[in-house]
Amino acid sequence: MKNIERIGVSLEKGLLCDFDKLIAEQGYQNRSEAIRDLIRRELSSEQLENPRANAIAAVCMVYDHHAAKLMQKVTDIQHTKLLQVICSTHIHLDAHDCMEIIVLKGKVGQINKTAKKILSQKGVKLGRISLISTQHA
Amino acid sequence: MKNIERIGVSLEKGLLCDFDKLIAEQGYQNRSEAIRDLIRRELSSEQLENPRANAIAAVCMVYDHHAAKLMQKVTDIQHTKLLQVICSTHIHLDAHDCMEIIVLKGKVGQINKTAKKILSQKGVKLGRISLISTQHA
Amino acid sequence: MKNIERIGVSLEKGLLCDFDKLIAEQGYQNRSEAIRDLIRRELSSEQLENPRANAIAAVCMVYDHHAAKLMQKVTDIQHTKLLQVICSTHIHLDAHDCMEIIVLKGKVGQINKTAKKILSQKGVKLGRISLISTQHA
Amino acid sequence: MKNIERIGVSLEKGLLCDFDKLIAEQGYQNRSEAIRDLIRRELSSEQLENPRANAIAAVCMVYDHHAAKLMQKVTDIQHTKLLQVICSTHIHLDAHDCMEIIVLKGKVGQINKTAKKILSQKGVKLGRISLISTQHA
Repeated sequence: MKNIERIGVSLEKGLLCDFDKLIAEQGYQNRSEAIRDLIRRELSSEQLENPRANAIAAVCMVYDHHAAKLMQKVTDIQHTKLLQVICSTHIHLDAHDCMEIIVLKGKVGQINKTAKKILSQKGVKLGRISLISTQHA
Repeated sequence: MKNIERIGVSLEKGLLCDFDKLIAEQGYQNRSEAIRDLIRRELSSEQLENPRANAIAAVCMVYDHHAAKLMQKVTDIQHTKLLQVICSTHIHLDAHDCMEIIVLKGKVGQINKTAKKILSQKGVKLGRISLISTQHA
Repeated sequence: MKNIERIGVSLEKGLLCDFDKLIAEQGYQNRSEAIRDLIRRELSSEQLENPRANAIAAVCMVYDHHAAKLMQKVTDIQHTKLLQVICSTHIHLDAHDCMEIIVLKGKVGQINKTAKKILSQKGVKLGRISLISTQHA
Repeated sequence: MKNIERIGVSLEKGLLCDFDKLIAEQGYQNRSEAIRDLIRRELSSEQLENPRANAIAAVCMVYDHHAAKLMQKVTDIQHTKLLQVICSTHIHLDAHDCMEIIVLKGKVGQINKTAKKILSQKGVKLGRISLISTQHA
C-alpha cells in the first residue's frame, strides 16, 4: 500500500528482547503491529485530555433492576444532552442485578458530564466510563 | 427495609460543604447514595486487584472492518477460553472503522489475558478493557 | 472540636460488613476516618481534571546517570517555567541507574506540560507524574 | 555502541505524521527515543501487574502536621515490614499541611500493602502510590 512508510528505530538489545517476549505473549504477529498500537494508544490518551476532542464512550453500569424508573431517568438525561446515544446493551446478571452498556458519541467533556449524571442515579451500584478518541482510531 | 443500617460519620464542615457541592453537580439526590457509591467503588477496585475474583468486563475496540477475518479470529479466541462471552455489540463508526464491545464474564486474570489477545489482533486500532467486579455490585 | 459535623448515612448491612472488613485490613481505626478519605480522594480527583486547579506533584523518574548533562537540561527546563520547583531527591539505584523525584507546585496544566518535557529527555527511561490537589487537602 | 540494534517499523503516513507532531510537543529529539519510552512503559506496566515483581515506589501524602505521633506510627510500620525504606522527603505546604514522600523498594504486593497501611493513618488526608518497576528501567 502506498500510504505506508517504513522508519528505523534503534534500541538496546536487552530492551528489544524483553519487548519481543512480551508481544509474543500478548499475541502479536509482528513488531510493527505492536509498535503501531503503542503509538495509537499514546496519541489517543493525549487527545482524551482535551475536553473538546471527539470521542466515543462505553458507559458500563451495574444496577438493581428493581430500581423503579431508573432507565426512564437515564433516557430522559440522554435526550436533554448534546450527545448522540448510539446504542445500548442490556445484560441480565442475576435475580437482582443488570448491566447496561450505553455507547455515547460526542466531545470528551460532554461525555464525562453526562456519564457522571447517569452513574449518580439511585439504583446504579457501580459504573465505569471507557473513552476512546475517534480522531486517530 | 430491614437490612438497612444507619451509621454516623463525623467530618470537618469545610469538607462536608465541598462534598455537598460536588455531589449536587454530579446529580446525586442525597449524601447516603453518594457515599454508598464511594464505598462500592472502593470495594470493587480492591477486588479487581485479585486475579481470581469474579468480574464482568466490557472489552471495547475500534478496528478496520476491511481487516479480513478479524472477527473470525476473535470468535476463535473466545471459543478456546474458559470465559463466558455474554454478548457483543457492533457499531458502525465511518467508512473504515467499526467499534465492537464484547462482554466477558469470568475471573479477572483470565479476562485480562483474553482481552489482550483480542486487542493484539492485526486490524484492531484501539482498545479498552473496562472491568467491574460482580461480588459487591 | 467545633468545626466538626456529624452526618447519618444509611446503607445495606452486607455492604457495611464488607466495608468494615476492607478498612480493617487497610489499617483504619474507624469508619469516619475511612469515609473522610474516600470523600477527599473524590474531591481531589474531580479537581485534578481542571488544568487551572492548584496542585503539587511528585515527578518520579529513573534515568541513566551516564546521560551527560541530563540534570543540567532538567534544571534549565525548571527555570524557564512558571512553576515552583520545591525540592528534588536523588536516589542511587545501581551502577547505571538513578531515581530522581522532583516536587513541583503550580497549576495542573502547567505541571503536566513541564513534567512531560522532563520525562522526554534522552536518558530518562521511565517516569511517573503523581498529582495531588492542594485545595481540599 | 555494540549492544544497540536497529529495527524497521512500517506504519501509515497519517499515523506517523500525528506521532511526529505529538513527540515534538512533548520535547523529544528523535523518534527512536520516543518509541523506546513507549516500549519501556509497556514493559513496566506489564510487570507491575505481578505482585512479586521488584519495584521502587514513591508514596506521596499530604497530612496535618498537628496529627500527633503520625510520623512515629509511620516509622513503626516501616520497621515491621520486609521493605527497604530508602529515604523520605518532607515538604512544608502551609500552616496546617505537610507533604511527605517516602521511597520504598521491594516487591509490588508488599509495597502496595505497606503504602495502604501508611495512607490509612489518622491525619493523612490524601495519598498517592507511584510505582516504577526496576527490571526494565
